[in-house]
Formats: sequence, structure tokens, C-alpha cells
Amino acid sequence: MAARKSGTPLHELSAAEIIEAVATGDTTCEAVARACLDRIAAREPHVQAWHYLNPEQVIAQARALDKSGKRGPLLGVPFGVKDIIDTCDMPTEYGSPIYVGHRPASDAACVALSRKAGGVLMGKTVTTEFANRHPGKTRNPLDPARTPGGSSSGSAASVADYMVPVALGTQITGSTIKPASFCGVFGYRPTYGDLRCAGVKEASGSLDTLGLYARSIEDISLYRDVLLGIEPEPIPSDVPVPKVGFCRTTLWHTVEPTTQKLLEDAAQRLARAGSRVEDVNLPPEFGGIPEAHRWISSFEFSRNFTWEIENYWGKISETLRNGRLKHGLSCTFDQYRRAREFAAHCRRQLRTAFDQHDVLLTAPVVGEAPIGLDDTGNSALCAIWTTVHVPVLTVPAFTGSNGLPIGAQLIGRGGDDRKLFANAHWIYRQLR
Amino acid sequence: MAARKSGTPLHELSAAEIIEAVATGDTTCEAVARACLDRIAAREPHVQAWHYLNPEQVIAQARALDKSGKRGPLLGVPFGVKDIIDTCDMPTEYGSPIYVGHRPASDAACVALSRKAGGVLMGKTVTTEFANRHPGKTRNPLDPARTPGGSSSGSAASVADYMVPVALGTQITGSTIKPASFCGVFGYRPTYGDLRCAGVKEASGSLDTLGLYARSIEDISLYRDVLLGIEPEPIPSDVPVPKVGFCRTTLWHTVEPTTQKLLEDAAQRLARAGSRVEDVNLPPEFGGIPEAHRWISSFEFSRNFTWEIENYWGKISETLRNGRLKHGLSCTFDQYRRAREFAAHCRRQLRTAFDQHDVLLTAPVVGEAPIGLDDTGNSALCAIWTTVHVPVLTVPAFTGSNGLPIGAQLIGRGGDDRKLFANAHWIYRQLR
Repeated sequence: MAARKSGTPLHELSAAEIIEAVATGDTTCEAVARACLDRIAAREPHVQAWHYLNPEQVIAQARALDKSGKRGPLLGVPFGVKDIIDTCDMPTEYGSPIYVGHRPASDAACVALSRKAGGVLMGKTVTTEFANRHPGKTRNPLDPARTPGGSSSGSAASVADYMVPVALGTQITGSTIKPASFCGVFGYRPTYGDLRCAGVKEASGSLDTLGLYARSIEDISLYRDVLLGIEPEPIPSDVPVPKVGFCRTTLWHTVEPTTQKLLEDAAQRLARAGSRVEDVNLPPEFGGIPEAHRWISSFEFSRNFTWEIENYWGKISETLRNGRLKHGLSCTFDQYRRAREFAAHCRRQLRTAFDQHDVLLTAPVVGEAPIGLDDTGNSALCAIWTTVHVPVLTVPAFTGSNGLPIGAQLIGRGGDDRKLFANAHWIYRQLR
Repeated sequence: MAARKSGTPLHELSAAEIIEAVATGDTTCEAVARACLDRIAAREPHVQAWHYLNPEQVIAQARALDKSGKRGPLLGVPFGVKDIIDTCDMPTEYGSPIYVGHRPASDAACVALSRKAGGVLMGKTVTTEFANRHPGKTRNPLDPARTPGGSSSGSAASVADYMVPVALGTQITGSTIKPASFCGVFGYRPTYGDLRCAGVKEASGSLDTLGLYARSIEDISLYRDVLLGIEPEPIPSDVPVPKVGFCRTTLWHTVEPTTQKLLEDAAQRLARAGSRVEDVNLPPEFGGIPEAHRWISSFEFSRNFTWEIENYWGKISETLRNGRLKHGLSCTFDQYRRAREFAAHCRRQLRTAFDQHDVLLTAPVVGEAPIGLDDTGNSALCAIWTTVHVPVLTVPAFTGSNGLPIGAQLIGRGGDDRKLFANAHWIYRQLR
């Protein structure tokens, strides 16, 4: 396996390090791609992160970039793409047997923006069926007996296992943040509406966003700028120590005691490091958010998949049929409308929380990745923040009692994603 | 051509009348489809509303429905679909030479919901290129020298010309309402987010909605319920006489004097008929909405079409390249974010307008359809309401100085679409 002067194998480099190494001529796009392919060849039998991977296609892309003299803010960076996202030159099967062999006519906007910036599309990562709950084949790279989380299972696992430095996922409930926590990587859900979802199979348009994975906050920020179609800007380094709101939420009783303790200790460590840390109690009605989230997502999901329901009912999993679809088809329009209005109300309410605090510290999950591959785990702690459309970054701050990672879920004000990165930077330094 | 007892030719029936005639055995799905096909055969050379039409495919669908004994709230109703919307058994070319021969894997949600309800997909109607400004071949059925408006050109023209009773369009600026006004039919843009856009080629996700065309408010309401995936409900008939806000907007100076006079007279007629009609002045900052709309739509459009830009720049029209794309690629993220925040601010402000009024009366366009087919006309008067996400219904209330239709654009409170229909019913009865 190729190695840099520093001794770090190429496949372990961050995106920022790859870009620099390629730009300085220290390595080539092809060498990086080969290093990642070697890593995948060694580890894929255990992890099963990839739904589609064609090494020749990867090498051809990387060579073409090396020859072209192309520049771009993601030059030479291999990226994975959740198989719920369209690609014009690779199959896109949405985690469903209905779409076996499906080849979209064009790339999703996020894929095209990644390629435009010089990224190398490695392949399609495993998604649960239609980004819902029915799991794919992926295992947690840190313990193959455990779930990697879902729905962006393969994207989280591939970044965690050093197969690619960055990968694209999506989030409708906790589909990005939960797998990031379970696999021990950085996971980011942007402010709703900021990153284009054109070419992503829609699950629930009122909630859907892209999601990003990386092994550093810098890479998350860089990749976000690429996907915004703007010139990348560094994370501001001159921000004051953030005022942290510690937010247990109304679901605190569902959080495992070990996780509770890790979060409580973290709040104290941040205070000792100089942050003004205060408890934040969400307005009591926020307890209704998980139910509102269910109505909204189920109603929209069950309409969006009308073609599949009408034509391929037998090829839809029991999990989906008896879960989200049954629930959605039983939901009246008034229930749906009320849930959407309630979510909008909570969004307005939440704005005041950020008058007193720069960032909220919360639990992304109840604990470590559970044992078993049949269930991707509890997403309720993510659903709250998904529903209110704010930016979320989970950082791999903690280790649970089984030695597996647990994230710290950091919440920013809607639209202030870059500031969230800056604050998360300081917080992560104190907690790691 | 087949005729009912009443003497009305089948192709002139409303959707509601077709459903009743089929349900009572008075006619068949096939007879209705054949009547519409005959009408198209006679008129299409002049109107050019259809991008794809295969009569055999239509007859086969209608026969299958007749044989199946299927029931459904749209049984036997022929519907047209703007060619920006995916269909699994007909080409979908998005008004662009890039997509010649493209055949999506599945139906868009709105198409699948229409078929599930028993509708007969007639074919794909002409759209401007990617639902932007570069026109297709369609002519105004009332005067072939004039534009039908855009971007949902073929859908508006086909309903106006009695080729189909209902058709699907979309709206990003004025793409549904403007053609409805120019062609003299009812056009409806729903509350943003209510009707699923899965399978519709995304132009600008923060603004995109479906749009519906019909020749009666009842049909608009019926088709909306079908697309919501709910049991249709009648329009409430027991609503009090609506309090009407007459809203000239900050763009009143752009409205032609004849159109101004028609609207002023209408306001007086509604007052004489018993409505409390008052002038509504939008907050002065609403003058900034058209510019905010341009930033939002251009920024998102220019990211969404990255794949087409990177791979098929030469196949994109000059209109689009030098218009929305150039504008969008020059837009910074901060400009975009500020525009989105401003739009959200205006949405909150507008809520108070509906404390005093049930419905706003406005001009949808500056006047009759302009002469010429190279430009689809001015959409600025629609863009205001599109940006603030409220439901809009234009009713063919007026006739301009050239004998061509002009609509009355009626605005409801966000989420109160059914009440808007009820109020529009009363208003239309007074004005027709």
C-alpha cells in the first residue's frame, strides 16, 4: 500500500490532506484511488459497505483526472455515495429489489457537484430499503455483530473503516447522525434546504436532507462548500469560546445511564474549559415532536411511493409495509397538516434558545450500536432536530462500556452551519 | 364524436361529469378517451400542446379500466402531464434535447396517484426547457399568434382547448398561473409542500410545487384530493360571503391600464354583491420579493443542473445559459441565504393580512397573452405569491381589449386551500 513521507497510508489521509498531496505532486489521484481500493479489497468481506464497486471504473476516473490537469477543491478525493442517490454511470437500486439494474439518466446534483470539484466516485454504498428501516448487508466495522446504524449504513461504515475519506448520505429521521455515532465518525446534517436533493429518491420532502460523513470537521466543512457550489472557505478560528446549552430533551429517560453519564461529564468538562454551560429545557410541547415527525414522514412517504405500492407491493419488505406505509396510509390530511403546522411552530420557538446559547449539546442515540443486524437502532433523539430543520453535527467524542463509540450531537442555529463547525471544533478538542 | 343525453360532447365534459357518466354506465372510459383523442386529432396541428401522444396506448389504458371494474375518484378521466414529470411508460424529455428518448424507471408520485384513482394518462404536454423560459412549440389555442404562457404551456393549452378536462403542471415562478390566465382556464398552485413533487425534475426546491389545470373549481378541488391521496370532499358550500382584500402589490404600475380597470371594477362588483372589500397594502419590504425570488431560484437551479451544465453545455439554450444559469452561478451563498431568510420573513408578515381578509384579489399577469411565441410573458405578479408559499387560484374572470382572457388571481392563507376554493366559488359567480 502506498505511503506518504509522513508515514500515513494514503487511504488514511483526510480529504484535505489528499488535496494537498495531489496539488503538490506528492501523490496522484490514481495512487490515492488504488490505496482506497486496496483497503476495500482487504476489508469489504467483513464490512459489506458497498452495493456497487467497480475498481476499473474508479481507476479510469482517477487516471483521467491525473491526465487532464484539472483543478478543483476536491481534486483526487475518493467519495462514496449512498445508493439512494442517482448516478449516471453506476446502477442505483435504492435498496430495493424493485430497482435491480436501474441506471438513471443523469447524476444527482450532489454527485455532479462532487465530480465537478475533482472528486473520484468510488461506488455506491449500502442503504436500507428506500432509506427506511429494512436493513442492508452492512456490518459495523468496529464489531461485525453489531449494526452500523441506518439508513446511510454503507456510507458511515466506509468512512469509519478508512475506505474513503468522505461519503454522502441522507437524513429523514436519524439516517446520517445515528450511523455516524455508531461507527465513530463525524456526521453532518445541514440546515434544511441548503444542499440540493435533486436526483435523490425522495422519502419525505418536508424533512429530507443530504448528510455528510468524514473523519474530521474540516473535511465536513470542505465537502459542504463543494456541495453548495461555492469556493471553499476555512472554518473561522477566531470565534469566542461558545456558550453551550446542555439539552437532555424530553427523551432523556430513554438514554442509557452510561450515555447519560458521558454527556453529563462532558458538560462539566466544557464548563471547566471555560464555556458558560447551562441546562436548556425545551418548551414542554417539544415532547410532541417525535409523533409529529412520524405523521409527516409517513404521510409523505406513503404518497411518494405510490408507484411502487401499486405495482410492486410484493417486493416491498414487511418492515416497510407494516411500518411507515401502513401508518402513512392511515393518516388523514388534517393530521398531516396539523403535524406540519406544529413542526413550524416548534421551529419558531427554537429560535429563542439560540439567543442564550451558541450551540446545544445533546445525545444522538441512547447508547452504543446495539447487537444484531436486523434493526438499525433508535432514531428518536435525532428526529427532534431533523423536524426543526436546524444544522446538526455529531462528533465521535465518547467511548461506551463495550469500547464502542458514542457521539456528541451538537446543534446550531438554522443557517449558521459554519458557526456550528467552529464551535464544534472547540468542543471536540475539549472532549476527545 | 360521442355525445351525452344532455348534448354536451364527451370531450367537453368536466372531470366530475365524466366520473358520473362512467359510474352510471352512461358512457365508458374508452368512449371518453376516444372523444378526447378525436378532439386532439382535430386541433393539435393548430395548438401543438403535446410532446408525446400515443392513441393506442391511451385506448389500451381506457379499455383495461372498463374491463377491470375498478373504482376510483378519477375513474375514466383523461389527464395530461407536463413533460417535466416522470412517466414509466412514456418518454420524459424535460423540454431539453439532452433527454431525447429518456424513459424513467417509474412514475412520479402525482402520476401514480392519478392512475391509482382511475385516471387515463393521455400523454406528455409541452414544457419550456427545464420549466424555465426557453419556449416549446405550443400556441395559444385562442390565438395561434400568441404565446400560451409558460412553463406549463401544453397543459394549460390542452385543458383550454377541450383536449383533456384536467392536466398537471408545475410552478417555480408563474409557470401554472400565467398560462392559465393567458389560455382562459382555472389554474391552481397549492400551498407549498402539500402535494408531492417526487419524480418531478427539480428546478428550485424551495419554490417548486405542482400546478393543476381544469375548467371548473370543482375539478381543481377533486384533483387536488386525488393528489393528496385522500377521499375527495366537496367544496364547502356554507361559507359566509368572503371578506376580500384588493391587493394591487408594488408592481401595480407594470399592469396594463385595461387590466387595472378590470380588477378595479371587479373589486367594486364584489362590494356591491355584499363582500366587505378593502384595499390591502403589502408591507413595503414586499417590493423586494421579486429580487429575492430570482436569487433563490437561480442559485438552486444552477446547482440542480450541474450534471447538464458540465456534460451538455452546448445543448442548453442561450436563454437559459445567459439567464438563470449565469445569474445563479454569480450568486454567492450569502446572497442566497439572505434571500431565503427574507422570504421566510415575508411569509410570517403575510399571516397578519389574513386576520382581516379571507382572500386577496390580485392581477396574475399584466394583460392578455402577448403576441409572439419567443417569450412566455411576464411572471413577476405570480412570483410574489410563489415566494411566500400561499395557495393561489386564478379564475378566468375577465376579457381584455383583444377579446382574450385575463384571470383574477385569488390568494388564500397557507394551508387553507379548501377554503380558498369555497371563496373563489363565490367570487367567480359574481364576476363571470
